Amino acid sequence: MDQATLERLADLAVTVGANVQPGQIVCVHTDVERIPLSRAVADRAYRAGARHVEVVYADPWLQRSRIQHGPDDSIGFAPSWAVDRIREMGEQHVATIRLEGAFDPTALEGLDGERLGHDQPPTRQEMIKLVTGRLTNWTIVPAPTMAWAQVVHPDLSPEAALAQLWEEVVFICRLDHPDPAQAWLERMHRLREVAAMLDERRFSAIAFKGDGTDLTVGLLPSSRWLAASFSRFDGLEHYPNIPSEEVFTAPDPLRVDGHVKATKPLDLEGTVIEGLRVRFEGGKAVEIDADRGADVLRTRCSLDEGASRLGELALVDGEGRIGQLDTVFFTTLIDENAASHLALGNAYGFSVRDDADRERANSSVIHIDFMIGSPELEVDGVEQDGTRVPLLRGGQWQI
Amino acid sequence: MDQATLERLADLAVTVGANVQPGQIVCVHTDVERIPLSRAVADRAYRAGARHVEVVYADPWLQRSRIQHGPDDSIGFAPSWAVDRIREMGEQHVATIRLEGAFDPTALEGLDGERLGHDQPPTRQEMIKLVTGRLTNWTIVPAPTMAWAQVVHPDLSPEAALAQLWEEVVFICRLDHPDPAQAWLERMHRLREVAAMLDERRFSAIAFKGDGTDLTVGLLPSSRWLAASFSRFDGLEHYPNIPSEEVFTAPDPLRVDGHVKATKPLDLEGTVIEGLRVRFEGGKAVEIDADRGADVLRTRCSLDEGASRLGELALVDGEGRIGQLDTVFFTTLIDENAASHLALGNAYGFSVRDDADRERANSSVIHIDFMIGSPELEVDGVEQDGTRVPLLRGGQWQI
Repeated sequence: MDQATLERLADLAVTVGANVQPGQIVCVHTDVERIPLSRAVADRAYRAGARHVEVVYADPWLQRSRIQHGPDDSIGFAPSWAVDRIREMGEQHVATIRLEGAFDPTALEGLDGERLGHDQPPTRQEMIKLVTGRLTNWTIVPAPTMAWAQVVHPDLSPEAALAQLWEEVVFICRLDHPDPAQAWLERMHRLREVAAMLDERRFSAIAFKGDGTDLTVGLLPSSRWLAASFSRFDGLEHYPNIPSEEVFTAPDPLRVDGHVKATKPLDLEGTVIEGLRVRFEGGKAVEIDADRGADVLRTRCSLDEGASRLGELALVDGEGRIGQLDTVFFTTLIDENAASHLALGNAYGFSVRDDADRERANSSVIHIDFMIGSPELEVDGVEQDGTRVPLLRGGQWQI
Repeated sequence: MDQATLERLADLAVTVGANVQPGQIVCVHTDVERIPLSRAVADRAYRAGARHVEVVYADPWLQRSRIQHGPDDSIGFAPSWAVDRIREMGEQHVATIRLEGAFDPTALEGLDGERLGHDQPPTRQEMIKLVTGRLTNWTIVPAPTMAWAQVVHPDLSPEAALAQLWEEVVFICRLDHPDPAQAWLERMHRLREVAAMLDERRFSAIAFKGDGTDLTVGLLPSSRWLAASFSRFDGLEHYPNIPSEEVFTAPDPLRVDGHVKATKPLDLEGTVIEGLRVRFEGGKAVEIDADRGADVLRTRCSLDEGASRLGELALVDGEGRIGQLDTVFFTTLIDENAASHLALGNAYGFSVRDDADRERANSSVIHIDFMIGSPELEVDGVEQDGTRVPLLRGGQWQI
């Protein structure tokens, strides 16, 4: 990709996404295929006054060697200093920027599933603490690579696939806008407004109706509507995902009824589920069918009690750019912002306001998003007395 | 380079150079241009039973951004955890492997020399402690890259330059040997034998005579002859440099007399000094001439009192493979093993046996090696009574 585009994406990550402050240490986490964007991000961060930029490169091929040849106690191990590092990052309130996208699927192909499954180093747990403790201003942005491009566009030549993926990333990150930073600030302002309005209305439920879908999803009394606009413990604002197009909340896991048809294929760590149809009764997914891959999803949904109930409900309007493309990106960062969606499994604790409700929100080891939105889908808010208030028609907010 | 060659070089680094032990953490330090060899080293280390392999990639382009755009307090800064990491590496007695070679010279071109000069993070000091404290079994091996190849072979196309550099690295690392590990163990055994014999003779001085050279270099009473065969604090052996062809010691900085002609060009951080001739009186370099670049060396030699005196004397025999090539590699790891050489500046403390002598060994901020060896150079040991004992004739040891 040309240097100017890299710099525009880096600028978004540093000044809008992570909102890097002068004097901060900036930790960039990515993998060895994403060096050009890492350099652009580091350069932009120093220009923004960063005291230090540290880029940490992961490499799935090292993990492959460990899974294949490492001794048993190498699985899930991390050196003490790698764990200490993340704790110190929190204490020093660093900025964190992740450059993401699917990596070369051949790197982990054919490995022992049990060793791979157990290879979860304690650094992951420490990263979750860093984020949930709101100790860092962080963001995730997409960084195209040839390997990722070939996953997304397997029918194109590698070069054409990469060019195509970059073109799409430029579009969905609004890098074609004369001032992408301003475009994102305006878009996020609008999404916060929508979330605040939905929040204020205290709907009892959200109803979806359209081609193949007739579903009502109950909300908890203090379900909180949010845009992906976070603030650090001290109030410093940042946008954890670029792009982000959604407003979302936690549903009542016991009050979901009707049937729903997915409007996009769903990638479940390598298995693509197409033509998904789910029927809910009393909050539980009682029928799961699909043109392809239904059995894999059924297995996931039987992992625990919460795995067949909903943990997230998100609305995406027609201004969202991802849904305008007919591309599956095979990375949640982007795909979950394509259209209004539901997630089976765990709810985010912060999307419920009261402690009592938080205990009622869904709990599970899984969290699987699937897209249900389209221009044809009518979305209503249902008031306590049953009155229906139009929310989305033809992809436009009605409130 | 083909995978088989990468694996042979990785095998040398892991099993001979660092001598990685089962259960060890292995820290690989390199830069982002050397990913394929890093992966081969990690794979070999896991096969050797390493508990964990951590690859840390440096990137001179990040340093460029810092020098150009970072705030003043970014210069010479490292995060606390980066310093802690190296201390913990020492406490846990990890293995350390550096993959080295010249990097892209354009990365640091045209930068503010003062900012660049001050950009020495505290991690360097901590690495020196790790090594001098003998807390790690470590090695450095060369890893060709296209950027390095173009520095070494500027007249070839980038691809041809890289192929040529790889061919040379295969030769000097003895990867063409049926069993490179065995070849190195034998070679190092021979060099340790030579060092022990030289040590036993307690020569008063070493005399060099040949085309353009007539120089006598005094030794200290307890100057210690060494091969580059080290042991960790607990006795674990390792070879810090692959390739290594030298035996070396610390001279008496007050007893060097005569004149010497360099037999190879000398690269002084970008300035190539050709046709170097130096005259010594009472240990001091009183005349420094060259066909090119003499002024740069003269400036360096005036930096402090020790900068114009010798800190190292090294002998390389004709079996050494680097000298058989007419290539300047622009990396000390390789170039200093091309031929017998002297170094202006600081002496290694461990190359003197007694504390009293150690204080007499040379001290300086500089350490600049220059090659004086050739098949024509006659090297004699001078006994206390003045008797001369032939040491090297036609590149063959005479003892």
